[in-house]
Amino acid sequence: MFAEIITIGDEILIGQIVDTNSAHISKELNKIGVQVYQITSIQDDKKHILQALEDANNRVDLVMITGGLGPTKDDITKQCFCEFFDDHYVENEQVLQQIKDLFLKYFNKVPLPANLLQAQVPSKATILFNSNGTAPGMWMEKDNTVFVSLPGVPYEMKYLLKDSVIPMIIEKFNRPHIYHKTLLTYGMGESDIAHRISEWEENLPGHIKLAYLPALGRVRLRLSSKGTNEQQLEEEVDLQMEIVHKMLSDIAVGFESETSVTQKIGELLIQHNKTLSLAESCTGGALAQEITQYAGSSAYYRGGIIPYATELKTSILGVSNELIKKHNVVSLAVAESMAQRATKIFQSDYAIATTGIAGPTKGDGDDEIGTVCIAIATPDRVFSEKFLFGKVRERVIQKSVNKAFEMLLREISKN
Amino acid sequence: MFAEIITIGDEILIGQIVDTNSAHISKELNKIGVQVYQITSIQDDKKHILQALEDANNRVDLVMITGGLGPTKDDITKQCFCEFFDDHYVENEQVLQQIKDLFLKYFNKVPLPANLLQAQVPSKATILFNSNGTAPGMWMEKDNTVFVSLPGVPYEMKYLLKDSVIPMIIEKFNRPHIYHKTLLTYGMGESDIAHRISEWEENLPGHIKLAYLPALGRVRLRLSSKGTNEQQLEEEVDLQMEIVHKMLSDIAVGFESETSVTQKIGELLIQHNKTLSLAESCTGGALAQEITQYAGSSAYYRGGIIPYATELKTSILGVSNELIKKHNVVSLAVAESMAQRATKIFQSDYAIATTGIAGPTKGDGDDEIGTVCIAIATPDRVFSEKFLFGKVRERVIQKSVNKAFEMLLREISKN
Repeated sequence: MFAEIITIGDEILIGQIVDTNSAHISKELNKIGVQVYQITSIQDDKKHILQALEDANNRVDLVMITGGLGPTKDDITKQCFCEFFDDHYVENEQVLQQIKDLFLKYFNKVPLPANLLQAQVPSKATILFNSNGTAPGMWMEKDNTVFVSLPGVPYEMKYLLKDSVIPMIIEKFNRPHIYHKTLLTYGMGESDIAHRISEWEENLPGHIKLAYLPALGRVRLRLSSKGTNEQQLEEEVDLQMEIVHKMLSDIAVGFESETSVTQKIGELLIQHNKTLSLAESCTGGALAQEITQYAGSSAYYRGGIIPYATELKTSILGVSNELIKKHNVVSLAVAESMAQRATKIFQSDYAIATTGIAGPTKGDGDDEIGTVCIAIATPDRVFSEKFLFGKVRERVIQKSVNKAFEMLLREISKN
Repeated sequence: MFAEIITIGDEILIGQIVDTNSAHISKELNKIGVQVYQITSIQDDKKHILQALEDANNRVDLVMITGGLGPTKDDITKQCFCEFFDDHYVENEQVLQQIKDLFLKYFNKVPLPANLLQAQVPSKATILFNSNGTAPGMWMEKDNTVFVSLPGVPYEMKYLLKDSVIPMIIEKFNRPHIYHKTLLTYGMGESDIAHRISEWEENLPGHIKLAYLPALGRVRLRLSSKGTNEQQLEEEVDLQMEIVHKMLSDIAVGFESETSVTQKIGELLIQHNKTLSLAESCTGGALAQEITQYAGSSAYYRGGIIPYATELKTSILGVSNELIKKHNVVSLAVAESMAQRATKIFQSDYAIATTGIAGPTKGDGDDEIGTVCIAIATPDRVFSEKFLFGKVRERVIQKSVNKAFEMLLREISKN
């Protein structure tokens, strides 16, 4: 069973927004055994939309469409459905009421005529009620292909997908099982890894596919398989993963899951009733942002200081001026002192500290751009490492974030 | 002149990564008058890649392809080119030398055979030398259509696009001009805006297209036009934009540019020789991360405190305990005190402070989830506003960030 995703909107084709909906839909479909064959992004253009629907109809069993359902004139997706399915509009009472209710609740007024038009839907469509917005989802069928239309607003799309569409797909289609397992590795290039595991890779069963995903000091190795016997499928992939995991035990740091490294850190800290604080210089808030994006982080995250200007490391954080003069502001000694001071100031059990030159220009010290010192303070000790992360600012910051969380996770996992 | 972007990689189709390359390429092509007609994402599958190349060949004049050029076995794009263009491999000396040089410099060793294979390229391809990696770009032609292949690693792709591909496209093709101008508005829904400007929208010249882009309390209005006379084109769009800008003067905050709101704040602060600090509670580092992602922010950004736990607002930031008890931790009074304390501690001219309940659970106070107080301290005064940003954590944080920078920009722009 194959699916195609069609995302509609000029803003995608001119690069004004990044299409994040497709990745989310792909991931969710994969979980229930639906393989996405193609993702197609097109403009708000009637002829092109009709052509894309026709092409997808010939390629796949399920077409997921997002975008173009808004109340303004540039939104033409619904008109295209009427033409494609040879249909006409009818007014949906429940949607009409929802529009009126939302306007009353959030804007304390009656909807405009344009908003009420959102209750006009193709008569053959099964309406998927949108409790988070005014544009309903729609489920339509033609020549044994199912077409699902969802609003382009990501959070409205996500709820509709989860609550309505996924259960309906499960009900409607016989699906195989798709199983992915991804090993996370740090510190070795993809070709070196490939070289080391080449014999194993050669002998992989034909129905198990290996992919290498390199990014910023990490390589992810993904094994994928598809079949009807779920248990057998998982056992085969797990067995192969076990073999390759052993071959890469020096660089493997675990398996990818819905849980990010940051969430794993949070879970472990909460489990052990421990807390964390941050003293971020060169990462400039990127560690804090990563932690606090997750609900529940306040249970273990005490807070952080971002002493961006050098003298603030002394005045606010309390790192000794002599230490900075002696070792340089970007040094293991200063990073360690920052981490220790953070645990004191924030009364936390653990702390991460970063100091470095993110670039593109040099900082207050003599260090090369891309030099980063990361320290971890624990209830028992403090330790640190120095890295050279290249010359591209965003990559230096992201590599520092990855490495800092990796160091902390390894340490917490020991206890 | 039309282009199509084809991104190749199973990781896109299973939702393991978000395809950001397409948005970047689309934006850069638009700047030189090339309209992207379609973006197609497909798997690392030979038959499908060949079909996509054939389809694109029939649709457009320029096909931009990313991905599948790595040294491992799952990378098959180059093989597909040989088949599609009826070609064979030759070894490229310059690429071979680059591979050897990079391995010596970064890994202090000789490349593996798999790496050396990256110097094997289709004989008919014009090679685009990649100074940031081992996979070269390629420029190929068939039936008057140009095919450009670039590595999938975003920063390698970006450099090659800018340094090699864009100049070659400019040289090769007669292109029209494409002109977009986008008005940023805050605080009114898209249907209300559409209602207010409906008469103007009805009478827009046919060659000027209007789009509404709503997101998190902002609506962007984009006018787009395409033509051969650049000056006339821009004048016509600018004139229409001036008219609609006046009609929306109460909600308009400026025009979208390559410069973000944060960068504009930075430019103004540097220009006036002023500095900024942050005291972030509910935004938890998101403001800091937004500021420090840009090079040169250390010229005006002093640093920040993230007093995530309530008592740290007193112990670290020095907000009075009585104030918190009297007004509640999420209050205008506490936000204002936080901002003022930040200017003191960091010796900055301006400060932003946030305190609120990002959710999904309630905080230490009685406030509704989504309640956020934002304060701005300036050299002359401190002011604040209270907002209700809904129940979805990521949206509460992002709306707070948008609103905080909007408040600061408005204030700085006055002076």
